[in-house]
Amino acid sequence: MINVTFLPSNNVVQIPVGSTILQAASAAGVQVESTCGGKGTCGKCKVQVPLENPSQTSQVSVIETKFLSSSELAAGWVLACQHILTQDTVIKLQDQKDAYRRKTDFVGRANATIAPSVRKYPVKLSKPSVEDQTPDWERLLAVLPVTGIEFNRTAAASLPKIIRQGNFQVTVVLDGNRLLTVESGDTSKRCFGVAMDIGTTTVVVYLMELSSGIVITSGALTNPQQVFGADVISRITHAARGPGQLQELQEKVIDGLNMIVHRLCQESGIGREEIYQAVVVGNTTMAHLFLGIDPTYLAPAPFIPVFREFVEIKASEIGLAILGTGTVRVLPNVAGYVGSDTVGVMLAAEVDRLPGVSLIVDIGTNGEIVLCGKDRILTCSAAAGPAFEGAEIKFGMRAAEGAIEGVRITEDVELDIIAGGKPRGICGSGLIDAIAEMFKAGVIGPTGRFASGPAQLDKLPFLVRERLRKTERASEFVLVWGKETASAEDIVLSQKDIREMQLAKGAIMAGIMILVREMGVTPQEIDRVLLAGAFGNYIRKESAVGIGLLPSLSLEKIKTIGNAAGDGAKMALLSMEERARANSLARRAEHMELSTRKEFQEEFMKGLDFKRVD
Amino acid sequence: MINVTFLPSNNVVQIPVGSTILQAASAAGVQVESTCGGKGTCGKCKVQVPLENPSQTSQVSVIETKFLSSSELAAGWVLACQHILTQDTVIKLQDQKDAYRRKTDFVGRANATIAPSVRKYPVKLSKPSVEDQTPDWERLLAVLPVTGIEFNRTAAASLPKIIRQGNFQVTVVLDGNRLLTVESGDTSKRCFGVAMDIGTTTVVVYLMELSSGIVITSGALTNPQQVFGADVISRITHAARGPGQLQELQEKVIDGLNMIVHRLCQESGIGREEIYQAVVVGNTTMAHLFLGIDPTYLAPAPFIPVFREFVEIKASEIGLAILGTGTVRVLPNVAGYVGSDTVGVMLAAEVDRLPGVSLIVDIGTNGEIVLCGKDRILTCSAAAGPAFEGAEIKFGMRAAEGAIEGVRITEDVELDIIAGGKPRGICGSGLIDAIAEMFKAGVIGPTGRFASGPAQLDKLPFLVRERLRKTERASEFVLVWGKETASAEDIVLSQKDIREMQLAKGAIMAGIMILVREMGVTPQEIDRVLLAGAFGNYIRKESAVGIGLLPSLSLEKIKTIGNAAGDGAKMALLSMEERARANSLARRAEHMELSTRKEFQEEFMKGLDFKRVD
Repeated sequence: MINVTFLPSNNVVQIPVGSTILQAASAAGVQVESTCGGKGTCGKCKVQVPLENPSQTSQVSVIETKFLSSSELAAGWVLACQHILTQDTVIKLQDQKDAYRRKTDFVGRANATIAPSVRKYPVKLSKPSVEDQTPDWERLLAVLPVTGIEFNRTAAASLPKIIRQGNFQVTVVLDGNRLLTVESGDTSKRCFGVAMDIGTTTVVVYLMELSSGIVITSGALTNPQQVFGADVISRITHAARGPGQLQELQEKVIDGLNMIVHRLCQESGIGREEIYQAVVVGNTTMAHLFLGIDPTYLAPAPFIPVFREFVEIKASEIGLAILGTGTVRVLPNVAGYVGSDTVGVMLAAEVDRLPGVSLIVDIGTNGEIVLCGKDRILTCSAAAGPAFEGAEIKFGMRAAEGAIEGVRITEDVELDIIAGGKPRGICGSGLIDAIAEMFKAGVIGPTGRFASGPAQLDKLPFLVRERLRKTERASEFVLVWGKETASAEDIVLSQKDIREMQLAKGAIMAGIMILVREMGVTPQEIDRVLLAGAFGNYIRKESAVGIGLLPSLSLEKIKTIGNAAGDGAKMALLSMEERARANSLARRAEHMELSTRKEFQEEFMKGLDFKRVD
Repeated sequence: MINVTFLPSNNVVQIPVGSTILQAASAAGVQVESTCGGKGTCGKCKVQVPLENPSQTSQVSVIETKFLSSSELAAGWVLACQHILTQDTVIKLQDQKDAYRRKTDFVGRANATIAPSVRKYPVKLSKPSVEDQTPDWERLLAVLPVTGIEFNRTAAASLPKIIRQGNFQVTVVLDGNRLLTVESGDTSKRCFGVAMDIGTTTVVVYLMELSSGIVITSGALTNPQQVFGADVISRITHAARGPGQLQELQEKVIDGLNMIVHRLCQESGIGREEIYQAVVVGNTTMAHLFLGIDPTYLAPAPFIPVFREFVEIKASEIGLAILGTGTVRVLPNVAGYVGSDTVGVMLAAEVDRLPGVSLIVDIGTNGEIVLCGKDRILTCSAAAGPAFEGAEIKFGMRAAEGAIEGVRITEDVELDIIAGGKPRGICGSGLIDAIAEMFKAGVIGPTGRFASGPAQLDKLPFLVRERLRKTERASEFVLVWGKETASAEDIVLSQKDIREMQLAKGAIMAGIMILVREMGVTPQEIDRVLLAGAFGNYIRKESAVGIGLLPSLSLEKIKTIGNAAGDGAKMALLSMEERARANSLARRAEHMELSTRKEFQEEFMKGLDFKRVD
């Protein structure tokens, strides 16, 4: 195993000798731009192996000479998908901006506010004497410029020794006017926090320096609650069995987060006691489970959460492995299926500051949809089902190595495979692409039915027509012939698969249409569409518009905003103002419960057809 | 074993068949007045065995017929020291007022305020629907008459099931505007709290009904920290060894308190989750250890505590076995050696409302002394050493069975023994009595030296003179001849024992004199002396005044106020106002550190002599 360090994030990962940089980046959770999935056809995955690093002398591939100029090669630039790693290597990413700064790209703000509530005060105390028997705690408070500080038992517990070890020089850590801890000596230079994004599938932790707003390092892990089921309903079902099961789910996710925090601390030489604050986002169910709060009644109608407000607790209360007295803040939820992750997205996208009308869509099992404009913020959650995540689709799979993520149909079918290699299945963005291309090519009609009859079939190119076949039960379309797949089995899309996608995109579009109508605008009046989340990052806009998953707008109005939920968590971590804004956004948001709207069924039926929505 | 129930406190104890009521009372921690120690000579231990109780028909002793009228006997009155128990019995104490109400006797107030901060609100919630998806927590808050309630994660955790189990009828428990818990159905009739008095030697818990102020039951236990030493210094020394040892001490005392609470709950059929609040008093070291706060620097000069303020925490934080979210309140300390127990005494004695000048003395290893008047409250702590507790005295012992607690010298020595039987040693009040009587009889002179030379010796009665003897090393006085003692060994007081007592009472008197002088009054201007604590209860006023432990005032000015520290805790438990008063008393108190006062040595020297102090 070798260690690979990615700059500027300082993310370190251990991988086997012989891995490519792209594989290392994927393992480290570092995003390297690549549209061909590592096949060496897009040339976008440029990274720099600094010259002092001997590893850069490894031989240059033919593909690299095609995409890199000789001066680039001389400066150590390589293609991440081509460069094989044989020893410990430091790699510099093309985009010098870290994830946090990157988020500001899409909103056009130079930088988000950095005004953390956690602050450090180095102070020198006078020494006690029989003439001045002031207790240690009062002695400390007397020299602090902040008043109204309440007694903190935990901080007081070891205070005498901390004061005397530092020879009466200490550093006080305050979060607002809450005293978190006292450290010996002057430690004012070190002040850290974590932003946490708890997804149903993946949990991500960003370790940040609070004073500068820099992401020092980050890490991700599959949500360990997965053992109780992939979706929120199965988690809720498990939690509903009893307090023991609820606790089990809470412990799972907190253990996972703690594992990441532990790793990040080791990587960066930061102690967990130096992490003074955590800000957490997640969907409403994840927020309940993280806090150990019974989510039972989120599952059945009328989908009642226990809470939706901003929650602030001590880390030790739930066993989160940062400073025990550190503050854990969970951003507010809007409703049972519009959680603090969506509030994080709203915060990062600054929906309250965008002119005109903005549509924000975060597509997953539930599509959270936000429409803002005319001084209103409307939200809804459309139950898209798991089709976009590849579930319920015969050859569906998660966006992992071997997944078809791009499809083009001309004379025949052309594919983009994640990480290159032989295809193993198809992921969500690939499905949308496939269906859009099949629709464009005439393989399926607007109703989703496969072409049949000579009039329709004759229009198809020969090689494409060959792929359309009838089985005993139904029709299907061969995306990849067995000879080219990892399993040697044909990868096909069945009529049922097409139906699943119709249901999914119909639900999303119905949600969009109901919000649009509620606001009293037309889809064409939408000034921008922001696609949040990993899925949004990979979706081909033309395809999404082509099948009517998104309104038919000029493509430059549609932008991807990456993990905006995580960005929102980072902003809230760095600024009290941003937390206040998150609160106000959540309160201002008007939630539309789709299941109670009679027009939902109607819109849903309309949304099933493949067609552009103007 | 049989069960004995004491009314009105409902205190139940299990004791062997054949025990006396007095023994049962002692085992139950119930105080029955008795000055002869169970010998049947004082007739004060009258209790009533209600007529419906068959046990009262047991035969009447000759002694009982001497002290009880025939109508009393007919009504079931017996002497507790004479009445033998053979079966389960209910016993009614002479004083129908419970311990809490009793405290009001000495201050002349009809009743202390009952205005607990913990209140219960039974409420009926509207049922949710798709039209009303209000989260459970908000639904609850909306119907409460109190605003500004913060989110309580623990209470929220199980809220959905609690609400639905009670068919949307719940009872909300608030402590001020802090929501403690929510219970299914209407439980507003049941609302409990505990007052805790953590002594270095003994911990006492009073289980109270908050709405009525009634003590339902109470219990005591030797402070389990005893294994680390009998006095505070040995506890501090152990805690100073490291965080593990500190935690050990904290766990010991909390385990002890939890054992008592558990027993009281079982006795009374009250669940620990129904105890919503605890108020704790103790000396400053005990308060530090209870909260797990490092007391290291309390031991060496300049005796610096970590804190002295009023502390409020959640029970779960320190593992106190009441409702986890329940509030634990520790009354404020004044200084390193004047703790919240003294503040409790001040509160119970209502020093801020007493006219004139009041002296309050709580005698133990440290004598806490409070002098109030002229709009000032002065406090000091006089290191009396352990002599008053029987330690450092050759035959000294705690006030337990077999201890000499009263001494009279006329023609010979007469003794009162606790619980009758053969004497085993002498306790603090016995020592004071013995020395006062020896001084009065001329066995010792004002300087504490034993009588010697014919002039002095001839004045002594023959039997008394016989008891004064010289050993190889020094003189000693035989209090009890071996033939009458439990060990068959003579019980004696040595010259060294006398010296120990001189040092102890000298320290107390010096403290008193310094406070008196600081206030600018004379001892004769003191309007009342209040003796707090168990020791104060047993001390013979004449003796205390006779040896100069207390100023020479007319005896009716000297009153015992029992466990006033515990009474203060009860008052603070029952009333926010009283807690505010405790705070203000602690803040108003001006602490005099005796070790820094140059006049202390002088006063101390003067105080050594046995003489009345005018």
